[in-house]
Amino acid sequence: MAERRTPRAGIVVTGTEVLTGRVKDRNGPWLAERLWELGVDLAYTTIVGDRPGDIEAALRFMAGEGLNVILTSGGLGPTADDLTAEVVSRAQGREMVLDEALEERIAEILRPLAKRWPNLDMDAIRQSNRKQAVIPEGATVLEPVGTAPGLVVPPAETGYQSTDSHPTLGPTVVVLPGPPRELQPMWSEAVKTQALRMAIKDATEYRQEMLRLYGIPESEIAETLRAAERGGVELSRLEITTCLKRGEVEVVTRYEPGEQEVYEAFKAFVRSRHADTLFSDDGSTVDEQVAALLRGQGRGAPTRTVATAESCTGGLLVARLTEPPGASDYVKGGIVVYGNEAKVAQAGVRPELIEQHGAVSAEVARALAEGARTKLGADVGVGVTGLAGPGGATVQKPVGLVWLSVVTAASEPLTRSVNLPGTRADIRDRTTTVAMHQIRHTLLHS
Amino acid sequence: MAERRTPRAGIVVTGTEVLTGRVKDRNGPWLAERLWELGVDLAYTTIVGDRPGDIEAALRFMAGEGLNVILTSGGLGPTADDLTAEVVSRAQGREMVLDEALEERIAEILRPLAKRWPNLDMDAIRQSNRKQAVIPEGATVLEPVGTAPGLVVPPAETGYQSTDSHPTLGPTVVVLPGPPRELQPMWSEAVKTQALRMAIKDATEYRQEMLRLYGIPESEIAETLRAAERGGVELSRLEITTCLKRGEVEVVTRYEPGEQEVYEAFKAFVRSRHADTLFSDDGSTVDEQVAALLRGQGRGAPTRTVATAESCTGGLLVARLTEPPGASDYVKGGIVVYGNEAKVAQAGVRPELIEQHGAVSAEVARALAEGARTKLGADVGVGVTGLAGPGGATVQKPVGLVWLSVVTAASEPLTRSVNLPGTRADIRDRTTTVAMHQIRHTLLHS
Repeated sequence: MAERRTPRAGIVVTGTEVLTGRVKDRNGPWLAERLWELGVDLAYTTIVGDRPGDIEAALRFMAGEGLNVILTSGGLGPTADDLTAEVVSRAQGREMVLDEALEERIAEILRPLAKRWPNLDMDAIRQSNRKQAVIPEGATVLEPVGTAPGLVVPPAETGYQSTDSHPTLGPTVVVLPGPPRELQPMWSEAVKTQALRMAIKDATEYRQEMLRLYGIPESEIAETLRAAERGGVELSRLEITTCLKRGEVEVVTRYEPGEQEVYEAFKAFVRSRHADTLFSDDGSTVDEQVAALLRGQGRGAPTRTVATAESCTGGLLVARLTEPPGASDYVKGGIVVYGNEAKVAQAGVRPELIEQHGAVSAEVARALAEGARTKLGADVGVGVTGLAGPGGATVQKPVGLVWLSVVTAASEPLTRSVNLPGTRADIRDRTTTVAMHQIRHTLLHS
Repeated sequence: MAERRTPRAGIVVTGTEVLTGRVKDRNGPWLAERLWELGVDLAYTTIVGDRPGDIEAALRFMAGEGLNVILTSGGLGPTADDLTAEVVSRAQGREMVLDEALEERIAEILRPLAKRWPNLDMDAIRQSNRKQAVIPEGATVLEPVGTAPGLVVPPAETGYQSTDSHPTLGPTVVVLPGPPRELQPMWSEAVKTQALRMAIKDATEYRQEMLRLYGIPESEIAETLRAAERGGVELSRLEITTCLKRGEVEVVTRYEPGEQEVYEAFKAFVRSRHADTLFSDDGSTVDEQVAALLRGQGRGAPTRTVATAESCTGGLLVARLTEPPGASDYVKGGIVVYGNEAKVAQAGVRPELIEQHGAVSAEVARALAEGARTKLGADVGVGVTGLAGPGGATVQKPVGLVWLSVVTAASEPLTRSVNLPGTRADIRDRTTTVAMHQIRHTLLHS
């Protein structure tokens, strides 16, 4: 990477309910993406309970690490345990002062509320109102979307309110409310403020690309990275991370625009070694590719329809196929046939097949696929039968064995088995990924 | 609450993909709950990228705050950017050493993998294998569930590997892998180790109970808490949190064993005010209750079977019903009928019904339920038809309108509609919760 001082940021998410895991944090990941778009390098996201000492310690830690900007979410409500503004003010070396104009604007917001609930305690309302209008001196106010104003609090100027003989300029802190529907528009306003623009003025634009591979272990990608380096691709100019996600390997690369050629060389290297398993180099998911193939996109072909007959996945595959808006254009439907009777009655599997080969077999998978196609009148039929466990295994047929078949009028049936590791939930979920890739493969080659 | 020195903990989640928001962190919230059960007070959860300097800074910050235990997740893989063990070792003042017995045990795990992928580079595998067997001296090994071993790394003893003239004993660090299905069983092993038990020996035992309600807004529970207090229930002796989760209100209470009576009084108070909506006071989920009711448990009744015909949920309901192990005992199967033809052909809905009332209507929901019951030969039939959006809405039928029907031979059909807020994914998911409660209600009253 080029030697430039990329601004660094931290996020402090406050809230005991988030820290204890009872409420999912939606703000950290959202703000992380926004920082990334701005070319600001996120170093830490810290979740902390509603304890002023802990919040302040987290802020001081990030300031000590030399971060240029810290974003906080939560703790701006009207109640006494909402303390973020005060804690930030102290950490930034600023006094809290009443902003009377802000107090009046908040009162304006509360007035219609008071009319709607005539029994409200107006004194309590006025107190809360005032509390929310007491802000760090010198902060820029972000107008409230709910009732809580946000703040952009620059570091105190050299010598200002400081007892330290050599004060250093610390981070600018952006204080945002907890509810995502308030935080998100207020962040857009924060980005326009002079105070925040100053703090991130050296930001570099980055590009990000993703490669997706299916059917190889993550360790092979590690080996490919080493081989690329030996082969002269300057990987040190790229920031590459790999991860395993729902049975696929994702390779995400971030780089400065000047390094586009290095990235292209890397991508070509991966393609040359993994032509058969690299299924996406433009960020598209297998779900998107299957949807596009069914719609005939990019091939000038007519729409093809799909139907499923599932046993062990119990409906997860058809649920996955119907996830995208407009899926009714190409999903005819599905049959979930859990018992053998249902396999015979609903999917038209011949009882002899089950007797001879067992319910988990190539023959039954194929018969399910044919049944789905015929019964639901689809172009493509998918059959899935397997053992998700934990019970039901035999020596020949262990838990995790799944047979899948994809049939069309135009091509040979594609019938395969996999042995999947993990829990019942893992096996059911992973099977849908295998099925999506088997559908994709069939659509590409027919 | 009693004044005791509660041990404090921190969690460090590593992974650039988690920090940037591309992968959702499932480990932080899960570990937070486990710590909570152990009576350990969680102070911080910090998410940090795969940068050794940042990981080490986060560890040192938490050690500096006097935490007794730090849990890390991720960064134990075979690739060079997986550095957690090394960073923890350095922060704890310990040397990295090769554990040859461990190396052999990992090799044992990799052998079958090598068979499955015959083109693997065996040298690369051996290198990765060795990397994972190099661990901090004096650490307790947690046997791998995948291929990565976990570690419990106590602070170096006074003076050990330390250049500090007054070293203080720091936190014990528990190093866990990133994949939840590996992390979770390995955490259970970690809790049994002498090293971790020592670090949290002053923990107070807590009890935790959960109440679940369906069909009321969260604000009503807030009002009930205030009323309980006015009614003389000493809520200050309990730690109560409420949250809205998948359309249900969860009330979680933590208390010391001596406060059992206060909790019982609180529970009785909630039951008296919310008899109709409190559906669980023993932690059981609606899914567990429906499964037990279908099995006839606690009623000495025979098993009843269920089948579904779904439109907008696209298989999510039958997938949810088949989630528990052994669901094949009572789930006959399901039909996903996305188009009108499929509704007629597969579920036996009369075309006139669709013409007269539209596909999203009480009549079609009921016909789907009857169709599912008859076609799949089940005791209970469930029909779901609605608009998950984003397209397809009319003035009379907005996005979020869903009709559900549950029919049995023994009772009147239960057919109802709901208007659900949120995105397509929200509406699809929430509909399955509504359906589960409607099934539960029918089973209880027939």
